[in-house]
Amino acid sequence: MVTRVHVWGASGYAGAEAIRLLHAHPLLELGVLESHSHAGERVSEHFPRLRATPYRFGESGSTLAAATDADVAIVAGSEDHAEAIVPALLERRVRVVDLSSRYRLDESAVYGLSEWFGEAVAEAQLVANPGCYPTAALLALLPLAQVASPRHVVIDAKSGITGAGRTPHVDSLFAEVSGDVRAYGLKGHRHYPEIQRFLHAGGIEASLTFTPHVVPIARGMLVNAYAVCDVAVSADKVAAAYDRAYARAPFVRMLWGNRAPSVAAVVGTNDAEIRVDVEGPVVRILCAIDNLGKGAAGQAIQNVNLMLGLPQESGLDARAIVA
Amino acid sequence: MVTRVHVWGASGYAGAEAIRLLHAHPLLELGVLESHSHAGERVSEHFPRLRATPYRFGESGSTLAAATDADVAIVAGSEDHAEAIVPALLERRVRVVDLSSRYRLDESAVYGLSEWFGEAVAEAQLVANPGCYPTAALLALLPLAQVASPRHVVIDAKSGITGAGRTPHVDSLFAEVSGDVRAYGLKGHRHYPEIQRFLHAGGIEASLTFTPHVVPIARGMLVNAYAVCDVAVSADKVAAAYDRAYARAPFVRMLWGNRAPSVAAVVGTNDAEIRVDVEGPVVRILCAIDNLGKGAAGQAIQNVNLMLGLPQESGLDARAIVA
Amino acid sequence: MVTRVHVWGASGYAGAEAIRLLHAHPLLELGVLESHSHAGERVSEHFPRLRATPYRFGESGSTLAAATDADVAIVAGSEDHAEAIVPALLERRVRVVDLSSRYRLDESAVYGLSEWFGEAVAEAQLVANPGCYPTAALLALLPLAQVASPRHVVIDAKSGITGAGRTPHVDSLFAEVSGDVRAYGLKGHRHYPEIQRFLHAGGIEASLTFTPHVVPIARGMLVNAYAVCDVAVSADKVAAAYDRAYARAPFVRMLWGNRAPSVAAVVGTNDAEIRVDVEGPVVRILCAIDNLGKGAAGQAIQNVNLMLGLPQESGLDARAIVA
Amino acid sequence: MVTRVHVWGASGYAGAEAIRLLHAHPLLELGVLESHSHAGERVSEHFPRLRATPYRFGESGSTLAAATDADVAIVAGSEDHAEAIVPALLERRVRVVDLSSRYRLDESAVYGLSEWFGEAVAEAQLVANPGCYPTAALLALLPLAQVASPRHVVIDAKSGITGAGRTPHVDSLFAEVSGDVRAYGLKGHRHYPEIQRFLHAGGIEASLTFTPHVVPIARGMLVNAYAVCDVAVSADKVAAAYDRAYARAPFVRMLWGNRAPSVAAVVGTNDAEIRVDVEGPVVRILCAIDNLGKGAAGQAIQNVNLMLGLPQESGLDARAIVA
Repeated sequence: MVTRVHVWGASGYAGAEAIRLLHAHPLLELGVLESHSHAGERVSEHFPRLRATPYRFGESGSTLAAATDADVAIVAGSEDHAEAIVPALLERRVRVVDLSSRYRLDESAVYGLSEWFGEAVAEAQLVANPGCYPTAALLALLPLAQVASPRHVVIDAKSGITGAGRTPHVDSLFAEVSGDVRAYGLKGHRHYPEIQRFLHAGGIEASLTFTPHVVPIARGMLVNAYAVCDVAVSADKVAAAYDRAYARAPFVRMLWGNRAPSVAAVVGTNDAEIRVDVEGPVVRILCAIDNLGKGAAGQAIQNVNLMLGLPQESGLDARAIVA
Repeated sequence: MVTRVHVWGASGYAGAEAIRLLHAHPLLELGVLESHSHAGERVSEHFPRLRATPYRFGESGSTLAAATDADVAIVAGSEDHAEAIVPALLERRVRVVDLSSRYRLDESAVYGLSEWFGEAVAEAQLVANPGCYPTAALLALLPLAQVASPRHVVIDAKSGITGAGRTPHVDSLFAEVSGDVRAYGLKGHRHYPEIQRFLHAGGIEASLTFTPHVVPIARGMLVNAYAVCDVAVSADKVAAAYDRAYARAPFVRMLWGNRAPSVAAVVGTNDAEIRVDVEGPVVRILCAIDNLGKGAAGQAIQNVNLMLGLPQESGLDARAIVA
Repeated sequence: MVTRVHVWGASGYAGAEAIRLLHAHPLLELGVLESHSHAGERVSEHFPRLRATPYRFGESGSTLAAATDADVAIVAGSEDHAEAIVPALLERRVRVVDLSSRYRLDESAVYGLSEWFGEAVAEAQLVANPGCYPTAALLALLPLAQVASPRHVVIDAKSGITGAGRTPHVDSLFAEVSGDVRAYGLKGHRHYPEIQRFLHAGGIEASLTFTPHVVPIARGMLVNAYAVCDVAVSADKVAAAYDRAYARAPFVRMLWGNRAPSVAAVVGTNDAEIRVDVEGPVVRILCAIDNLGKGAAGQAIQNVNLMLGLPQESGLDARAIVA
Repeated sequence: MVTRVHVWGASGYAGAEAIRLLHAHPLLELGVLESHSHAGERVSEHFPRLRATPYRFGESGSTLAAATDADVAIVAGSEDHAEAIVPALLERRVRVVDLSSRYRLDESAVYGLSEWFGEAVAEAQLVANPGCYPTAALLALLPLAQVASPRHVVIDAKSGITGAGRTPHVDSLFAEVSGDVRAYGLKGHRHYPEIQRFLHAGGIEASLTFTPHVVPIARGMLVNAYAVCDVAVSADKVAAAYDRAYARAPFVRMLWGNRAPSVAAVVGTNDAEIRVDVEGPVVRILCAIDNLGKGAAGQAIQNVNLMLGLPQESGLDARAIVA
């Protein structure tokens, strides 16, 4: 019995990636692909890279009209969009994975960081899918709580430009992004409280400095966390904590020795690559994910799998392409 | 019963792409991955993007030692390499798909342009897999022979740099390719005779001008063919000829109306996108393929599928990623 | 005595490049930098790459208010903008270089292809600066008229995305342009009649096929012209014609032997690189320019130099940066 | 009287950038351009982007043969090269700017961080030009010593690939760098001791974590320094210290308010852009430079200017190109 998954807000990058993944998913099928701005248009016209798919965008209200309590809906819009559509879906007993930040700090939702809250996700009616930076930052830092008490955490993150969405802005133009590296959100980024909240919940009470950057890649991100402690930390204990934390996590790849996380190695996948180094009282953790994969649509599908009792890896076993 | 496919010359880009495709193929399994320069090393060390795979490169001679007449070997080396290894494999009744140009103009091999010579491929012991430029150029031009007799054909092609291989040269460095567009092979390119030979065989006797370029992309190519005829050509007849030629070709997508072939739409796939326009006596055909996919490893797997009587699409149904 | 040059429409890419060039020009000084959308803002806020310049954008009407008959105005707007502002400037006896296509086919203006119409430019009150594609195509083809009569000309052009301007569109986003090569304007491009008109005027009556492409570079373009003649052409005569045509053109570099035009070699300069090959009845000419340099602001400054009797090279002697 | 500057090791990226800058320098002229591997070849053949220059590479020994005590030599080779050539040049009383790390920790040389040691540079016979990462890191951190005593400093740096040189390696290929972000030198980078030494000399005794990355740009780098102190730091005092430190530094641009350093804004220039933020006990400093400009050849020319008593800015006033 194949479950139907609707995508509300299907014409952005995260929505399109959800379409791509669901199209190939062996145990789920696509339902309505709602898009206000492109209702009635073919997905293939709007996204040449989805040219081989046969779908059309549905009009406003089509998700709500079609969804039943047997379905799941992935909602990929703004906070305001989420506030408008999610309660109505829940009222009809549709299970929801919301990609906005609207419910991430809200008691009514389960925070969908699959590797850490998978059991609660499995029971949830509403999953608040984590932001891309928080996904990488929390995967990088949460295991550390078992073995160290950092006083300060510096997060320096480099993201592809799809994180800024598909709505055209000067700052997202090829001619502006190409050849440049730039920090942004220097006076505060909307992901800051999300990272801080779940670090605290996970036992890391450190103060936090967060600096996101745009680098000239379309997809993927590398998030470096530097945990500055008061005393030297045991490298062996740290290594053991990470290995233990992710021993049964099929999408997390711990790298040791001379291997470093690579954005290219995770783009197009739901994988996370993590490496940890200890230098006296400083622990450096590097984490690479695909911002549209594990950082958005991939993790959303992983959560849908968990909610439906399917194997976590269903439809998510793609490998990065070579070059 | 799953057939084993060996890859000889597995540490270049085409070899690695073959590994990626075979790793995910439901009806084939990887055999030996022979690499002289990296024997004994993990594939995942050499190609971070294949980090999730468990394989090691085999040493010189390992393919020949392991292969039986139930197996297929994909040979991804130079002309000289092919000359050294292919006859020995054939002697052991191993079926071979050779990616070099060594046997492409040779009577002993079937030219593996799958859409045009698929029936012969199915019976072949040795398939000479076409070059990337010839694949796109011939897919673009062969249907035209039914309805026009061009006097001259201009081919202007733009390729990603993986076409130059993974052996490091100054001309392939990021700092040289980035920000540049450059023509090369202006005094003759090794693919010229291959294109000409199979155009002639297909009934197109035109003289030929061929200008390849490197553009700053890793993978994929767009090949434009301009067929200059003596008299005006019927656009309707041309359209009908192309639709007819590829009506049953699962990997060829004819684009009409306002849709143009896009390299990004085919990268990571075995697809070809083709568009034809007629302006009086000139027919312009655009064809986009992935040089490592349909132009190399993808078509090789397609040919293996054909040789084994498997569905052509087996293991080749990936879609391009979004952005 | 330094002449003041105003820039009307200064907040687009061509306008900003004009600012950069005029800022460093030893014999010209910047006047008003008019921008409707950014009036009052610092140029350095709008263009980080011009951060070291001290200018502000002027408001609507400021050019007309400031300009005298001793000044020159570069107008960098749409056809409609040109129609609104150019006549008023001319009425005040301001000399004008207009970058739009409004006056390019108009008897009242001199067509500003500097190498071919420099003498008329020197006397002009209104110069219609050529489009980027026409600049490269005409530099490539006009010398040929002396020695050959092509029946058909194919122009296949690859451009950086700044040619599409700085107004944000989905098609200009980094995530759409990166990794892709795509043709556009397949049913007709606005530069087609301009190229055709000046080819005819220069004695080349051939029919014309024109295919522009976007490639993933910010600036620069390579324009290939294939002239298909009825009879074989003398390579020596062709070479002599090109050498003669550009013997005294300081910005045109003829390349022979194993050297091919490179976009990277002309970006940031006012140079054009040209190479010609003859293959029987087909003459292939490759021409690389910077679309914002020789294809827009650079040629505009060259024309201002000519109009004012200054050395052509004044302020235009920059070399491309290494890598 | 124009001084002659020789370039030893002229066929790498830093050497070529020195050629470009010296070619346009109004008060210096190029002498010998020595290259072992390309002796006798035209610079324009080896570097298409220097096609407009007329120079040839000289053979081994030509610098030593030509240089007099009126000349300056820029030496752009490895540590071993420096050890072989620099003493011989000094013996002939040639003034030397060495770009290798050979003499940077050596008492016999002046460390050529122009903004901090300019007076000593003016008197020096041998200047050890700083590495690119140290240049940015020290410009970012040295002013802080006046107002804070960080316990730990984290440096997270993102560099263009020209930092890896022009000798071809797999890791520098377009197909490997494109689409990826990767950290390297995780177990120690050769610039670490250089940064540490001059931080200590400048009064910053903090322990140091340094993580360099390659991002897909050819030139330029962004270096972020996070200084973690024991107590909260006064933002006003920090701002005053930086403004004071660079008040008379023509190449350092302090950015405040909503402006962030941009790599694109400094590529092709000798500029450094710096921004400082204080968050309680943590001071974050961002610094963008061109690794081949201020990080190599640009600073070398600046040092030559200082050594000869010329204005610092001579030949170094280029602006970044727009897009």
